[in-house]
Amino acid sequence: MTAESSVPAEAESKPQGIAIILFSGDLEKTWAAMILASTSASLGMPTKVFVTFWGLQTFVKPEKRIIGKNWMQKALAALARPGIKHRKMSQLHFLGMGRWMMFKLAKQYGVSSPAELLEIAQMMGVEFVPCLMTMDMFGLTRDDLIDGLGEPVGAASYLADVASGLAPIFI
Amino acid sequence: MTAESSVPAEAESKPQGIAIILFSGDLEKTWAAMILASTSASLGMPTKVFVTFWGLQTFVKPEKRIIGKNWMQKALAALARPGIKHRKMSQLHFLGMGRWMMFKLAKQYGVSSPAELLEIAQMMGVEFVPCLMTMDMFGLTRDDLIDGLGEPVGAASYLADVASGLAPIFI
Amino acid sequence: MTAESSVPAEAESKPQGIAIILFSGDLEKTWAAMILASTSASLGMPTKVFVTFWGLQTFVKPEKRIIGKNWMQKALAALARPGIKHRKMSQLHFLGMGRWMMFKLAKQYGVSSPAELLEIAQMMGVEFVPCLMTMDMFGLTRDDLIDGLGEPVGAASYLADVASGLAPIFI
Repeated sequence: MTAESSVPAEAESKPQGIAIILFSGDLEKTWAAMILASTSASLGMPTKVFVTFWGLQTFVKPEKRIIGKNWMQKALAALARPGIKHRKMSQLHFLGMGRWMMFKLAKQYGVSSPAELLEIAQMMGVEFVPCLMTMDMFGLTRDDLIDGLGEPVGAASYLADVASGLAPIFI
Repeated sequence: MTAESSVPAEAESKPQGIAIILFSGDLEKTWAAMILASTSASLGMPTKVFVTFWGLQTFVKPEKRIIGKNWMQKALAALARPGIKHRKMSQLHFLGMGRWMMFKLAKQYGVSSPAELLEIAQMMGVEFVPCLMTMDMFGLTRDDLIDGLGEPVGAASYLADVASGLAPIFI
Repeated sequence: MTAESSVPAEAESKPQGIAIILFSGDLEKTWAAMILASTSASLGMPTKVFVTFWGLQTFVKPEKRIIGKNWMQKALAALARPGIKHRKMSQLHFLGMGRWMMFKLAKQYGVSSPAELLEIAQMMGVEFVPCLMTMDMFGLTRDDLIDGLGEPVGAASYLADVASGLAPIFI
């Protein structure tokens, strides 16, 4: 009887993990996602990040300038430079001033940059999974993306994680 | 005993459904919501979409140009044309170029448009529910909205779904 | 046996609470967050709001004009005026016209303003918790923020709430 009644209690005490959809490519939202992902992993919570649409741009290798297979994909990439070091703020951009100040303030107060947090998160076992459909639409190959990402999957794979109990966070 | 101990196990294995709040009216977020909703339903997960604020504009009938009861509501509608076929991208709009390219790439890679996905989602039993308060504020009537939507409700109804176990996703 | 089999049933019927991350400072998203928080509390659901980044600006005292400890923080504050009464719409701003119309329509249809909803939510026991890291980066002190907020905490504290069962909503 004791064993049985403890089953729901265990179920209750099991920490609920998170499954982030990183949809945005804005600097500040990228930052928020990286803080949540690395902190969640450090608390021992199962943590996955499904990177899609503008968010996938963040995971393009920094040295890549021209990506895409046709002229439309190349034009989209040229207009919004990919890579985690080229994220722009959604407002207060002012020729990079707001962005520059944000990084300067972060450094002053010991806050890690998104690129540093990504490294930490990957080391702590956070799984970053690229969206296959976004890769197709933007003409991205596995070689265009940074190392250490999971196999590209579709929305069904992300939702299966949610169905099995990870709490979705759309950023 | 076997029956009893299987209760929590069943509870664990029961797929968790999702309750999307579609708040945004941007093309790419509308697209993301439609992909999540239709995929979730195809996996047999309980799926609801509460459409509110800019998101509700998406569910205005395509033939409606002038909506609203007073001049302010009409002005708001005129400034942001409603309907799922008139969603604009949040960035890279460039007189519709980015949008046009996005649709062309989607077609090329066999990705359904938001309007097609909405139809699929509705056929698969996803319930789209309009926000009553948004309808009031924008002066929208049931007749302004597309067919097949649920009864307009308030935030309390949405939150009751969350309280009963659907995972919220704010888009 | 009856008592035992009722345990999972109770666990099922226990309303799931919500843990909002209010990240945005946009008028309409602030509004959505305040409606969700106050409605959730009115339904007896455990409700917390973690206010971070642009969202924290909303909780600066209305009389504060110059906040921050160094020139960069002061410049950021000057460019985006803080306080719940100075939220701007993300689009249709038009020199405040869209914003003015939105408030006028809200009043006409009996919808409370974000500032009123914040008061209601606080009275109903919603806990608003400022993000410590954001306070550091923007140079904000407890004295700059409105009364009645919880102790400033980091992302770990927010995620502990999620781990213990509150459903995350990122706004």
